[in-house]
Amino acid sequence: MKKLSDLGERRAIQLISNILSKGKIAVGIGDDCAAFEFGKDYLLVTTDMISEKTHIPKVMSPWQIGWFIVAINLSDIAAKGGKPLGLVLSLGLPKNTSESFLKDLMRGADKCATQYNTTIVGGDTKENNEITLCGTAFGLVKKDEFMSRKGAKPGDIVVVTGTLGKAAAGYYALKNNIRNREMLKGFLEPIPRIKEGMALAKTKLATSAMDMSDGLSSSLYQLQDLNKVGFEIDKEKIPLSSMLLKIEGKQGFDVYDHAIHFGGDYELLLTIPQNSFREAQKTMEKTGNSLTRIGRVTKETKILIKSNGKTQVLENRGYEHFIKRKHL
Amino acid sequence: MKKLSDLGERRAIQLISNILSKGKIAVGIGDDCAAFEFGKDYLLVTTDMISEKTHIPKVMSPWQIGWFIVAINLSDIAAKGGKPLGLVLSLGLPKNTSESFLKDLMRGADKCATQYNTTIVGGDTKENNEITLCGTAFGLVKKDEFMSRKGAKPGDIVVVTGTLGKAAAGYYALKNNIRNREMLKGFLEPIPRIKEGMALAKTKLATSAMDMSDGLSSSLYQLQDLNKVGFEIDKEKIPLSSMLLKIEGKQGFDVYDHAIHFGGDYELLLTIPQNSFREAQKTMEKTGNSLTRIGRVTKETKILIKSNGKTQVLENRGYEHFIKRKHL
Repeated sequence: MKKLSDLGERRAIQLISNILSKGKIAVGIGDDCAAFEFGKDYLLVTTDMISEKTHIPKVMSPWQIGWFIVAINLSDIAAKGGKPLGLVLSLGLPKNTSESFLKDLMRGADKCATQYNTTIVGGDTKENNEITLCGTAFGLVKKDEFMSRKGAKPGDIVVVTGTLGKAAAGYYALKNNIRNREMLKGFLEPIPRIKEGMALAKTKLATSAMDMSDGLSSSLYQLQDLNKVGFEIDKEKIPLSSMLLKIEGKQGFDVYDHAIHFGGDYELLLTIPQNSFREAQKTMEKTGNSLTRIGRVTKETKILIKSNGKTQVLENRGYEHFIKRKHL
Repeated sequence: MKKLSDLGERRAIQLISNILSKGKIAVGIGDDCAAFEFGKDYLLVTTDMISEKTHIPKVMSPWQIGWFIVAINLSDIAAKGGKPLGLVLSLGLPKNTSESFLKDLMRGADKCATQYNTTIVGGDTKENNEITLCGTAFGLVKKDEFMSRKGAKPGDIVVVTGTLGKAAAGYYALKNNIRNREMLKGFLEPIPRIKEGMALAKTKLATSAMDMSDGLSSSLYQLQDLNKVGFEIDKEKIPLSSMLLKIEGKQGFDVYDHAIHFGGDYELLLTIPQNSFREAQKTMEKTGNSLTRIGRVTKETKILIKSNGKTQVLENRGYEHFIKRKHL
């Protein structure tokens, strides 16, 4: 009898998708958000669950836990170019949870929501053995500005917002007792790229887009599966976080491996036509963030990484729930 | 330091509501659903979480667990008169969950969604120590048909759909190893009153409405708090489920206590103007269900129950998370 630990998260989702009846929905399972037709707009909906076991390290403060569950849900809205409309938040909490923990949790959640001009409009509070939070975010995007995961074409280029490795650097700080608040924040307080997603959506340049919650390599493999294309990434062009660079040179620590495989950065990964890069880059710079070209879309369904003139197949070592995989 | 076990679920929700920033939302925390303005409609959103510890008895099949999480979310949409638009479903599951468990769970969830003309459009699958499911349902209702929890006025009458005590009878069967499938279903496969809610909403007669997930007494106390009114309930008018009546006369089993306090029936509780009862009742009969007048709204903020000419204060013994209360 097969277990979830044999299947892994993505095959489990495929299995679920095969069982579910298909409704009158514009975009269903397999993208960052589901999308419903709403006049000229799509109503975007996304949900994310976190629990102590998999997402909440002991060092995370209640405020940060609240921030985190809101941020990762908003990130999915951002990845489709959406403007957040609101969130609901279900809290599964042990009976002995203190009032002050609950207050700080909600203050963090509220802070993240208001920071991105949205609000938490409802929720549910239930008893659970383990802290388990489930957020659902919804947003709106004009139909012709919706950035799908599908559409990458050979010849397009691959771009990413911001820098990679912030979360990996924070995790390293955590494990090595480095009390650098800025470094830890990269792991514990991710930034949903709402204004970047909205600005890029308005350009209508993206041929495909997603957030990189599970890491660059895992995200590229997901886009490969969906689009039946390949990618060629220039390793040295990957924009590394300044926090990650502080760790460079430490025994056994490969900054590129961490930037590529670790995940948790919630930057956006997009493909755009080659001749649109300057326009997309200028748009991004107006938001105060950067856009970096890191590779190109290829016809052959392989993901290659080039470095110093050598080309190798990029391993798929990103995080996946239920299964243990060669990670970092 | 106060714990959730001291506060209880409803005071925890009040505390959360005080912390959260208020957005541009038509209906916020404290009703069955949040509601956003959407042209002539409200977009309704509700979320519910269940876990092994509190909601999933061992005897519940995976199919029933799937049905249950969808049904209780749709029930909140029903209580506002909404037409379901879709649901997202987050699954927190132990690593050793079998593939067949996951499949049956999703078949049950899908069946409940399609039964009420809606679909599950997305979700999340995560590892958790304990089976924890979180559903979020959304729906639409015309603004002038929205049935709020607020608005009950002295002089209105109190009505309920269907019969009460189905869940209590199912729970009794479970505890006493009575293998009556129909009886067990009342507890394990609740029915969201979608068509009833939509039909009642169209009459625009409801001055207040909610579902009775936590039981009649608990629901009345919630309406009392919100509306600053009282209620006088005629005990003998409470419509008892035929399954509950099968248990009548068993040692120490009070059918009315169970119908009033047990919860889990997901019937709708409404207040309507006194002179509208026939119209509301006819509307309900067209859906194939019944509507029963069980009492009236009073000015004094007390909840009284009349039986055989005697009037007593109705105890608030409904279910509430985190705290142990004198129950059944």
